[in-house]
This record gives sequence, structure tokens and C-alpha cells, in this order.
Amino acid sequence: MNNFTFCNPVNILFGRGRIADLPGEIPKDARVLIAYGGGSIKKNGVLDAVHTALAGYTITEFAGIEPNPSYETLMKAVELIREKDINFILAVGGGSVIDGVKFIAAAVPFEGDPWDLLTRGAKAKSVLPFGTVLTLPATGSEMNCGSVITRKSIQTKLPFMSPLIYPIFSILDPETTFSLPPRQISNGIVDAFVHVMEQYLTYPAEGHLQDRFAEGILQTLIEDGPKALKTPEKYEVRANLMWCATLALNGLIGAGVPQDWATHMIGHEITALHGLDHAQTLAIVLPSVMTLKKDTKRLKLLQYAERVWGITGEDDDLVIDKAIDLTRAFFERVGLKTRLSEYGIGEKDIPALVQQLKAHGMVKLGEHGDISPEVSQQILELSI
Amino acid sequence: MNNFTFCNPVNILFGRGRIADLPGEIPKDARVLIAYGGGSIKKNGVLDAVHTALAGYTITEFAGIEPNPSYETLMKAVELIREKDINFILAVGGGSVIDGVKFIAAAVPFEGDPWDLLTRGAKAKSVLPFGTVLTLPATGSEMNCGSVITRKSIQTKLPFMSPLIYPIFSILDPETTFSLPPRQISNGIVDAFVHVMEQYLTYPAEGHLQDRFAEGILQTLIEDGPKALKTPEKYEVRANLMWCATLALNGLIGAGVPQDWATHMIGHEITALHGLDHAQTLAIVLPSVMTLKKDTKRLKLLQYAERVWGITGEDDDLVIDKAIDLTRAFFERVGLKTRLSEYGIGEKDIPALVQQLKAHGMVKLGEHGDISPEVSQQILELSI
Repeated sequence: MNNFTFCNPVNILFGRGRIADLPGEIPKDARVLIAYGGGSIKKNGVLDAVHTALAGYTITEFAGIEPNPSYETLMKAVELIREKDINFILAVGGGSVIDGVKFIAAAVPFEGDPWDLLTRGAKAKSVLPFGTVLTLPATGSEMNCGSVITRKSIQTKLPFMSPLIYPIFSILDPETTFSLPPRQISNGIVDAFVHVMEQYLTYPAEGHLQDRFAEGILQTLIEDGPKALKTPEKYEVRANLMWCATLALNGLIGAGVPQDWATHMIGHEITALHGLDHAQTLAIVLPSVMTLKKDTKRLKLLQYAERVWGITGEDDDLVIDKAIDLTRAFFERVGLKTRLSEYGIGEKDIPALVQQLKAHGMVKLGEHGDISPEVSQQILELSI
Repeated sequence: MNNFTFCNPVNILFGRGRIADLPGEIPKDARVLIAYGGGSIKKNGVLDAVHTALAGYTITEFAGIEPNPSYETLMKAVELIREKDINFILAVGGGSVIDGVKFIAAAVPFEGDPWDLLTRGAKAKSVLPFGTVLTLPATGSEMNCGSVITRKSIQTKLPFMSPLIYPIFSILDPETTFSLPPRQISNGIVDAFVHVMEQYLTYPAEGHLQDRFAEGILQTLIEDGPKALKTPEKYEVRANLMWCATLALNGLIGAGVPQDWATHMIGHEITALHGLDHAQTLAIVLPSVMTLKKDTKRLKLLQYAERVWGITGEDDDLVIDKAIDLTRAFFERVGLKTRLSEYGIGEKDIPALVQQLKAHGMVKLGEHGDISPEVSQQILELSI
């Protein structure tokens, strides 16, 4: 096990009706910006519930944070906050809204061009306080200190992290997810699944407990994921899905063990150039990474096959191939395609994707840093 | 899944050599009390390492916090702190030292008789800041907000909890455990195991992920526990044991699910009246609770049997009995006795134990509140 530091101070308020607890979490005299996305929270009653809970607060709304939140949109919120002297942000939505609010919170007090937070490793020195009301189980952003932002004008999607961007609190009410379109639930299941795989499917590092926890999340997603699509209003299923997605990327299962993240980095470029949903790219890229990195991931692939899928056998390669097939089949069972060609992306599009990886310095990916642009190209070719 | 609130802000510094990171965690101008137990940290070099790390700080030492830390001893530390105007406490030791320091930290600024914190539900309004250097994996106190204190003069052992008594940081270096006597490792394994069982072995509450995590800790303890005794200086084994013990009782696996804790409450009285180590009492009481509460715990007992021990079969009662036998055998394999009679405690001693339970209000124990003093008596009789 590697040395690690782990501190996750987010206050999780989980369960039915927890939006009503908002006043206990936000100072009474705060000037609050409610930030959200496309407006589904207006239809499903979540925005009303938030307003009811925050009666008496000074509130401004900012709508329109898009999937893959854009620098361009977020900077408009930064202006609004400065103009109105707002001092608390409440993100209401999924990972994109929360990621966006993290960037806004860091950008408001930042001296200089906030784009430097993403490209030049500039460190945020302070952030505006913010909390979240999660309505889409997927990214884990509600309980971590990471964010991914897109700058549309240059088709670039980049991550940034800071211990200052943990939300102060996150409200997780599974009932807010009942009305989500199936596509978003499908995406959420795959996103959480691949988050776990990025931290688990590397090489044995004697993180025995981390492995068991990772396998536990995968097993729960396999058990409850399809049910979440079949019976959208079954509370217990949505509750488990929500808690799985949060714990898949809150730092716990990745503490003290090697991590991969190649699938994510390659996937980001597909989203940037072709507009696929984040999870759609993961469902395509992961099976190819598993196949092409079979040798360096061999021992964990065998452990994954046995513990998560119950597959054992004398021929290790057969066992591994079966585990990869089952992974692909699981993604398809929860409604995602697993081939680039199904989105009309083919061989001709690959050089540009590889070029983007190079442009963003993504030239030594994976837990061994051995996924060069050439290997990424093979992964993409195998994904057609 | 039940509604829950989860917030655990403890900063964990895990791994080899992390004691050297102490200066980053304690304000430079702090007047520090180093609190510890019987002095083993003097022999194994831990106290030296702490002093080296804290060179330049104003330091006072307080030794002699005993296993089952006593109110009498702790109040001496409270006096010393007030006298020397100390403003930071560093607990160096195991769960007893840490539990003791939690009480000290709450008692120093408490107005009135600090005993009220334990008996009258008085709430701490502020506490002295404190951190820990853990040297004994067992209780989880290093990452939770609970403490158990004994008042020797009246043979009473009582728990207290407060969100204010999370340590600010805890340093977990598995190497500090290499020199522990086998008895303390045995106790630690069983303590962590039973902490998990108290939060897991109740009734199905659709906490699918909580169940998987609980089972993952149990499996890791079963795998690494005996190795920790056989090969005391194998770092990876001790690292997994240490992380298991911490996560067994940091609030995570118990969030949103019913909890039992009857084994602990009954065990506390055995310690108070007969001086057994805490874990020694748990190894005796748990198998009897499992046996006597077979009906109400039936579904979880079957799940435990299958997922943790790999036992299935047509006769549910046989499966359950085998799982209980394996649990008892595991405790014995890691060096603990599982019968009261092995400590010279017999039928004649039971009325006094039951009387103590009544005196402390422990009259409706268990996840259903259906363990009355009469049932506790049966549990104790079955434990002879």
C-alpha cells in the first residue's frame, strides 16, 4: 500500500426530504446564487423545494450551465456574482453543474485570468463557499475536490483539482432522480462504474481493503443499475445507485493504490471533438484499454473476473476475455453503445483525437505511464 | 436505506514515516501536551520520533492513561492543562489513549462537572484541539467522534459522543505496530471485526453498498488478521489491518442502516466488573448474541454465511450454525478465548452483570430494542 493522505470534509445529507434542511447549512444572511442547468429542476419540483427551504434568503438564479460546463458560460456567472456581491453558491443539478460551480467559486476571488487555474497549474488561494443539491448520480463531484471544464472556443476539456473545492455540504435525495431521462441514468451507472475501474484495474498493490470496497461498488452497480432503469421510482434502488456514484469517486477507494485514468483522458477528447456524452466515451474506451493492456493489468483482471463476475478457469486469457465481454455487455445492458462506429466515428477521425491528446500533454497515460500517443491510437482503433 | 447525515473531517496521514509530518498539522506556537499510556512508545521509538518532529515546540508530557481510560486519571490531565495553559493535545497510543484525550479535550473548557458529559447527556460546546498518532489498530477512535470512559470508583464504563471530538488529524504508520505484543494485535482484530458486525448483522435494510463494504472489511480481517500475528513485521499486512480497524468504525458502513451494539454494551459490564480486555468480552458475547437472536437476524446471518464464509446449503439453520462456529473459531485462531468460564467467570457472577446493565439503563438493547435484561441474562448464560 502506498502512503496516502485522506481528508474528505463534505457534509452529506442523504435521504428523502433533505432539501428542507438547507437553512441549517447556509448562513441566514447569505446572498445566495442558485446555479443550475437546463431547467429540468423546474419541472420536477426540485427548484421549488429549494426556494421553499430558502424562504427569506436573498436569492439570485443563474441557469444554463450545460453538460460539459463551458468556461464561456461559467465566466458569465462569475461576472454576475461580482456584480451582485453574492457570497454563497448553491449548485442544484448533476456533475456538470457542480463542476461548473467549483470553477466559478474558485474564479470569483482569483486574481488574474481564471483560465490559468486549468492550464497553468495556478492554485486557488480562496474560494467562495458553496454547497450542492445533487439530482443526478454519476460523477461523484458532490463529494470530491475535482472539476472538469470545457473551453468551447478551442475545443478543450481540462480537469482541475484543489482541496478548497470540496463542497461544504451536499444534499442527496434519491427521489430527485425519479424523473431523470433513462439516458442520464445509463450515463450515471457507467460513469460510476468506470470511476471505480480507473482506481482498481491496475496492478496488485496490497490495498486489500481498497480492492474489496471497489469490488463492492461494482457489484452493487451491476445489481442495482439495470433495476434503476426498469423501475425508475423504486426508492431503494435509486438510493443505492446514488450512494455508489458518490463513493466511487470521493477519494476513499483510490487512497494508497495506483490509478489509471487513461480511459477518461482519451474519452475527454472524444467529447471535445465529437460531442458524445462523457459516459458514452467511457463505455467505448474502457473495453479497449482492458484488452490492449491485458498484460500489465493481468493479475487485477483475473481478480476482477473472479470476484466481480464469478469467473474462474484454467485458461487465464479466456477468463480475462470473458470478463471484458461481460463488462461490455453490462454497458450495453444499461443502454450504452460501446463502439465509436455506432456514433459515426471512424478511422479517419482518429488522427485528430490523438493530436488533441498530444496537444494537452496526455502522452504518458495509465498507471505505468506507458500509454503513449501511439498506444492511445491503437486503443481508439480497437474502439471503432 | 434510512436517511443519514455523514461528515467525517479527520485528516488521515497514512504510511511509513508520517510522524515527521506533524509540524504541518500543529500550529507552530502551540503549547502541546503529549498524552500517552504505559510507556511502550518510549521503548519502540515512537515518542522519540514525535519529539524529533516537534523540535522547537513547547511540550509537556502526560503519561499513564490506562486501558479503559479512567475518569480519575483523565481529570489529572485536565488539571495539568489548565495549570500550564496548554492549547493542543497530541494523543500517542491506541484507542484508550485517544478516547481519554477526547474526554480531556471536552472536559477542559467544560463549565460544571465533566462527569455530566457521560451521565447527564451534557453537550460539549467547545473542545481543545487535538490530533493523534495511532500505534494500535483496534477501536477506530482515531477517525470517529466517540469515546468510552470508565469511573473506577463506581465500576462504571460509559460512552460519550460529540461531533466536536473528531481528531483534527490522525497519523497512521503501520510500522509503529510492529513491536506490539500479540495480545494487543489479537484484541485489535476482534475489536474491528465486532465493530463491523454491530453495524452489519441486523436485518436487511437495502443498504446494499454498506453491506458490501462491511463484508469487505470482514473478509480482509479474516485474510490478514492471522498473518498479522504470524509475521509481525510484514508491513503490508499491518497496513491493511490498520486501515480495516479505522474504517470499521468511522461512521461510513453504519450510515443509513440499523445498528445493534448489544455485544458492546454487555461486554462493557464484564470489563467493568471483571477487568477483561474490551475485545476479550466481545469474543465471548458476540457468538451468543448471534445464536440467541438467530430469528430476528436470520436473513443477515444467511447473507453473512454466504458472502463472508462461502457457506450455502438447503438447511438454513445448519448454514447459520456453521457461520457462528466459524466466527468463534476465527476469534480463537487469532488468540482469543470465547467463553466466560475460561476467565473463571460462572453462573454466580451473572446477576451482578445484569444488575449493572439495568443500573446503566441498558434494558432495551439491539437493533429492535428487544434485548431486555432477561435476554441479556440468557446471552451471558450461553456465554459461560
